[in-house]
Amino acid sequence: MDEERTEAWWSRRAWALLSAVRERAPLVQCTTNLVSMDIAANVLTAAGASPAMLHCLREIPDFTPRCDVVYINVGTLSEDWLPSMRAAASAGRPWVLDPVAAAASGFRMEACLELLALRPAVVRGNASEILALAASSLSDSSSSFKGVDSSHDSGEALQAAKALARSSGSVIAVSGAVDFITDGQQVISASNGVAMMQKITATGCAVTALIAAFVGADPSDALAAAACALAIFGLAGEIGMESAKGPASLRTHLIDALYGLDEQTVTSRDTSLPWLPVFRKYTVWGDLQGPGKP
Amino acid sequence: MDEERTEAWWSRRAWALLSAVRERAPLVQCTTNLVSMDIAANVLTAAGASPAMLHCLREIPDFTPRCDVVYINVGTLSEDWLPSMRAAASAGRPWVLDPVAAAASGFRMEACLELLALRPAVVRGNASEILALAASSLSDSSSSFKGVDSSHDSGEALQAAKALARSSGSVIAVSGAVDFITDGQQVISASNGVAMMQKITATGCAVTALIAAFVGADPSDALAAAACALAIFGLAGEIGMESAKGPASLRTHLIDALYGLDEQTVTSRDTSLPWLPVFRKYTVWGDLQGPGKP
Amino acid sequence: MDEERTEAWWSRRAWALLSAVRERAPLVQCTTNLVSMDIAANVLTAAGASPAMLHCLREIPDFTPRCDVVYINVGTLSEDWLPSMRAAASAGRPWVLDPVAAAASGFRMEACLELLALRPAVVRGNASEILALAASSLSDSSSSFKGVDSSHDSGEALQAAKALARSSGSVIAVSGAVDFITDGQQVISASNGVAMMQKITATGCAVTALIAAFVGADPSDALAAAACALAIFGLAGEIGMESAKGPASLRTHLIDALYGLDEQTVTSRDTSLPWLPVFRKYTVWGDLQGPGKP
Repeated sequence: MDEERTEAWWSRRAWALLSAVRERAPLVQCTTNLVSMDIAANVLTAAGASPAMLHCLREIPDFTPRCDVVYINVGTLSEDWLPSMRAAASAGRPWVLDPVAAAASGFRMEACLELLALRPAVVRGNASEILALAASSLSDSSSSFKGVDSSHDSGEALQAAKALARSSGSVIAVSGAVDFITDGQQVISASNGVAMMQKITATGCAVTALIAAFVGADPSDALAAAACALAIFGLAGEIGMESAKGPASLRTHLIDALYGLDEQTVTSRDTSLPWLPVFRKYTVWGDLQGPGKP
Repeated sequence: MDEERTEAWWSRRAWALLSAVRERAPLVQCTTNLVSMDIAANVLTAAGASPAMLHCLREIPDFTPRCDVVYINVGTLSEDWLPSMRAAASAGRPWVLDPVAAAASGFRMEACLELLALRPAVVRGNASEILALAASSLSDSSSSFKGVDSSHDSGEALQAAKALARSSGSVIAVSGAVDFITDGQQVISASNGVAMMQKITATGCAVTALIAAFVGADPSDALAAAACALAIFGLAGEIGMESAKGPASLRTHLIDALYGLDEQTVTSRDTSLPWLPVFRKYTVWGDLQGPGKP
Repeated sequence: MDEERTEAWWSRRAWALLSAVRERAPLVQCTTNLVSMDIAANVLTAAGASPAMLHCLREIPDFTPRCDVVYINVGTLSEDWLPSMRAAASAGRPWVLDPVAAAASGFRMEACLELLALRPAVVRGNASEILALAASSLSDSSSSFKGVDSSHDSGEALQAAKALARSSGSVIAVSGAVDFITDGQQVISASNGVAMMQKITATGCAVTALIAAFVGADPSDALAAAACALAIFGLAGEIGMESAKGPASLRTHLIDALYGLDEQTVTSRDTSLPWLPVFRKYTVWGDLQGPGKP
């Protein structure tokens, strides 16, 4: 294990990135699905970023170059939005892709592959989405990745993610009970969060938006930005869960917690806290063979 | 009264259907209005269903046949979405229609009538919507239903609902302080819920989504699915009202309550509970002449 | 200072207008951006108005003339919605414009100027939006307003607002820590609200919707309607802040508070309350030279 990148290093990095979002308030252009707009915008705002939802092709040339980062999400994709997505992804700003339900249709998968070719800094999906994307993207290539395991096991998704990262040049994040983030070389895991977050619609879309904000605040290391955003979002979910009585109140408390996160919460190891601080959750593997011992 | 279908029978049925939604997690394609997407998706998720918001015509052939049920809602209708609605309604899956503000325009009413002809399993609207739909649908027919009473009395809505159910072949649900659900022969009433639910935008849209989930979990009896979904949603509202301080907190607590509903709450008759269990709310009439004595 | 328009006069006026909204339930057609629909509709409903989200050009001729007021908001503007906005603004009903991020693109600014020429009763924006709109609108005119101060100082925004009000014939509201509302002659200020409201996405859009509801309930005095709506919304935020733990719970509590506002809260001066009653917040200036002493 890299001596520098201890758990304490990661927790300080996560705090530094969240602080950078709060200080710089990166302008995040979001071309995202209709159902996620409310939660994505509110998560970005609570984190300190400045969201701008926009999908009109005629506005891209004026607006997108002024943004710090672009977030594109293909949920509720339609033919009339796709040209705007292409244009925004090609505007020279770092950008982040959420391939929601990539396998929902041939049309959507083609759109995802086309966007992937425009080289997002980060792609975040669940295991099924990353597996499907990898299978379609790599099927005609000489990659060692061979296909989709129908069981959608996280280890297999990790192999797919590594192969996809190497072929695409993007950081690939596979979220789940344990999140894996890889640039094809390094793999980082983060396991903050609570299961009930999956019962809130569009938490996946919202955390991808947060990844975009972290990339916007510091585009120099997309791997760290993605890992830290996932951990911070999960940590907010853990804290929110303390007062939640169900998924709707968890949504409220998660956003409140994200807004209120302080340095001690992100970096301390006070075991009296019922939720675990973020830095206990990272594991770094130097090899490419899959997860080693945590 | 049918001996089988006592209040206790209905409460067990409601619990069985909610349990089926949780176990089978029916995939519900929603082509719904823009303002209801957040609450509809979160209600579906909290109930245990798997919502997929989708409105792109090119995705229908690939995606809709894989769904358990389709939910179509004409609020914020536009010309570019209507072909997708037609296609989704024609894809061979059971589907549910919410004719939001059917009388808002000639365009919308025509769309509703056209969709009605594609034979939804269930149509759910308020009294005004069902009366308007019945008036337009039946005006040229030989139906005994003669027109719309401007007072929009629930008894008149029930007559319209029965006539509409017989002519369309769909189950018609009229929601209100008392909900009426009819297949043109039987009429079921459910009266769970609290008045403040009307102060939350799109609760009507959300409960129609829940009806779709119940139909998706068990398509064999759309009448029971609609009645039980309405009762379960209302019961969640009653429980949520216990801790609500206004419509926004009611929304949160309703969704939390829906997520947490257990068998005892749905089926027991413990009078120490401040909200009434669902099975006290049903009345079944065998005649077609209108509501009898409860 | 006009003897009639004391702080007590304003507080009674605010209460009278809120009461009128509750009694008359004005039908507010909203053609608004995708991210604000949920909060705008729920704010309107909690206030007692009847929102109708609608953006289909074919529905305007049937529906808009039946509305009490129209609300148009250019966030997430697209080419296909603009004709509907023009048609709705031209339908003969009083209407209110929110020029969200007017300077985001040339396309959006042109749309705002075109809509402004259709004479909204009220335009509400933040200082940057009003400054940008005034700069574009007045640049070719003989107005004494000379340009945009890059510092976006509220005093300068006020001068821009006055000039814009005189040239457009609309009431212009500039919201901020202190809100300024002017018809080009009179200036009213309101300073209710809490800073955290800016951390909730689309609060600006929601308060413009509320202004529309107030105009719909009493179209005779758009200046008073705008000022009172801003003050009432801010007051609800102050009360909501009492129990908020972050922006998401503030959103919930603000809407609950708006729903529950009573006469005493709006009009009393009970200093034991931690939030300030609305009537302490108004100042009226007769001159056009800028803010005088409060």
